[in-house]
Amino acid sequence: MTICTAYGACEAHADLTPLHIQRRTLRPDDVAIAIAYCGVCHSDAHQVHNDWGNTAYPCVPGHEIVGHVTAVGPDVTKYKLGDRVAVGCLVDSCQHCAPCDEGEEQNCLKGATATYNGKDRHTGENTLGGYSESIVVREKFVLRVPAALDPRCTGPLLCAGITVWMPMRKHGVREGSKVAIVGLGGLGHMGVKLAVALGAEVTVITTSPGKANDARALGAHHVLLSTDPKAMMASANAFDFILDTIPTKHNVNPYLMLLGRNGVLVLIGAIEPLEPIHGGLLMRNNRSIAGSLIGGIQDTQELLDFCAEHNVLPNCEMVDIRDINTAFKRMQANDVKYRFVIDMASLREAVPA
Amino acid sequence: MTICTAYGACEAHADLTPLHIQRRTLRPDDVAIAIAYCGVCHSDAHQVHNDWGNTAYPCVPGHEIVGHVTAVGPDVTKYKLGDRVAVGCLVDSCQHCAPCDEGEEQNCLKGATATYNGKDRHTGENTLGGYSESIVVREKFVLRVPAALDPRCTGPLLCAGITVWMPMRKHGVREGSKVAIVGLGGLGHMGVKLAVALGAEVTVITTSPGKANDARALGAHHVLLSTDPKAMMASANAFDFILDTIPTKHNVNPYLMLLGRNGVLVLIGAIEPLEPIHGGLLMRNNRSIAGSLIGGIQDTQELLDFCAEHNVLPNCEMVDIRDINTAFKRMQANDVKYRFVIDMASLREAVPA
Repeated sequence: MTICTAYGACEAHADLTPLHIQRRTLRPDDVAIAIAYCGVCHSDAHQVHNDWGNTAYPCVPGHEIVGHVTAVGPDVTKYKLGDRVAVGCLVDSCQHCAPCDEGEEQNCLKGATATYNGKDRHTGENTLGGYSESIVVREKFVLRVPAALDPRCTGPLLCAGITVWMPMRKHGVREGSKVAIVGLGGLGHMGVKLAVALGAEVTVITTSPGKANDARALGAHHVLLSTDPKAMMASANAFDFILDTIPTKHNVNPYLMLLGRNGVLVLIGAIEPLEPIHGGLLMRNNRSIAGSLIGGIQDTQELLDFCAEHNVLPNCEMVDIRDINTAFKRMQANDVKYRFVIDMASLREAVPA
Repeated sequence: MTICTAYGACEAHADLTPLHIQRRTLRPDDVAIAIAYCGVCHSDAHQVHNDWGNTAYPCVPGHEIVGHVTAVGPDVTKYKLGDRVAVGCLVDSCQHCAPCDEGEEQNCLKGATATYNGKDRHTGENTLGGYSESIVVREKFVLRVPAALDPRCTGPLLCAGITVWMPMRKHGVREGSKVAIVGLGGLGHMGVKLAVALGAEVTVITTSPGKANDARALGAHHVLLSTDPKAMMASANAFDFILDTIPTKHNVNPYLMLLGRNGVLVLIGAIEPLEPIHGGLLMRNNRSIAGSLIGGIQDTQELLDFCAEHNVLPNCEMVDIRDINTAFKRMQANDVKYRFVIDMASLREAVPA
């Protein structure tokens, strides 16, 4: 067991403060990682604030982790000291059920172990995330960061990136696909970049005329204002795939109307009841609405490799961990383009080991 | 042009009464059909009553038509006099757009021509359906009825049948699939029979304990009472595919919970706003909700051939056309197991030519 420094919350609605936490002694298939950067996800704020009513304290958030290997257990074969690696939303799963066998560890029938606020499968202890100096993770859940990827901006691929990547892959977004991205925040901006990299013709749908230039700067080919009824009508039946990143209750019917034959709208933001959906809009054109939640380990590795090959990275603003509480507030006010990443060097300055 | 006898409504909310209508002179690719049987669909009543606000009168409903060929135009190659044939919901489409090219005439970009209450593509005249002595239909939209199918019960395959068949095929229902059918009416009972014939393990979900024996008689392996919270909980994540035939506004969340990983619920009944759907239920297990509406010509022929091969037919109650207004009332009160079919011999008795 080792002690390391971290930032975490000790109770709901409390600010994050410096902590010392324990990391386990390496099991045979464990990898120890010194954390260099950790992305800041909306989930981090929700979990810290106990918005979902299931937070165990102390809570150390962070599941967009990038660093390098500092030690390996005797059974580890894929990684060696110094390798640049990453850890996403999951650190373990049963590895025996059909979803695990098929690379969908996030859907493990026995419940995957979340990187933070999860339960360690051996000890039952609360897992603690990446706002920390180091972490110990089962080899199978450690990802390789290709040399071509800038490690400072790699973190958000582990959650925001895989969240938009999975539905695009599942629903066959490719060269020439007509794709719309609804909402231009952390998820939406990754959606634009990845869809463009896949060769799709990409439209950003937004309520804010002011976001048009931002959308084009990210690579979007078109911008559609959802507040312009004529423009919306002119785009009826126009899209194969719509990624709906709106994080709160909303009316999806105006977007459903934009889907062409066999088109699909994928919800990745709103974890709450939507406004009533009209059944007839689904029947016409054989449309569908799907939900999607993160992705498995192999798919996440595929994403990292794809981003290295196509030079796709999130737009990140680096923050000092001492400013994390302000960063949470700014993130919740959508005042970030488009993801915060904590430079963990600041942790060493903030909390002497 | 020929005159033929029919039953139709001359205004909204009026009963169906005997009429004489015109059938066009054969175009080069037309087939003339003497109608022997016509199924009675919920749409027939909705259209006659102008429930959708778009009915042109006089309205002669009927799009589950079975009969034999009495004449063919000079360009007709597939059919000859005496062939047993059928006509479903569509009698024409543009034949040049991508949906038409791909066998989805129902999604024709220029609008498919409905068998009744449609607009003839050449004359603009209101189309008149199968509650009639005869019909003239473009060869491309005429289906062959295999000799092994009982023509008395074939009609409902043309609408109810294809409506449940299409989503099962699209979503890969097959040997071993875990399928649930919600609602046991005209659509639901076909859903049970076709899913069983495809080799699926089939559960009927109903609010009515009294329907359990009916469900088993149709071939269902299990019955799940949606009013039993314990049984519903025990079936969480259990199904690959749920066919939701409920024809009115309802709450799909309890059914969504029953879908396993990548499971899909297909709406084929409710052409109206649903109760609010919880986004989180879609994200968990990567579930989806799709809509589906009838099917194309090639798929309908595939269904007829499948039913002939697997000896699948709807359960029908034959009715005299003079009793059609009573049949509408009984159908709307769910007092039919499971579809009415008009024996068109009764039309010849009711309305001398």
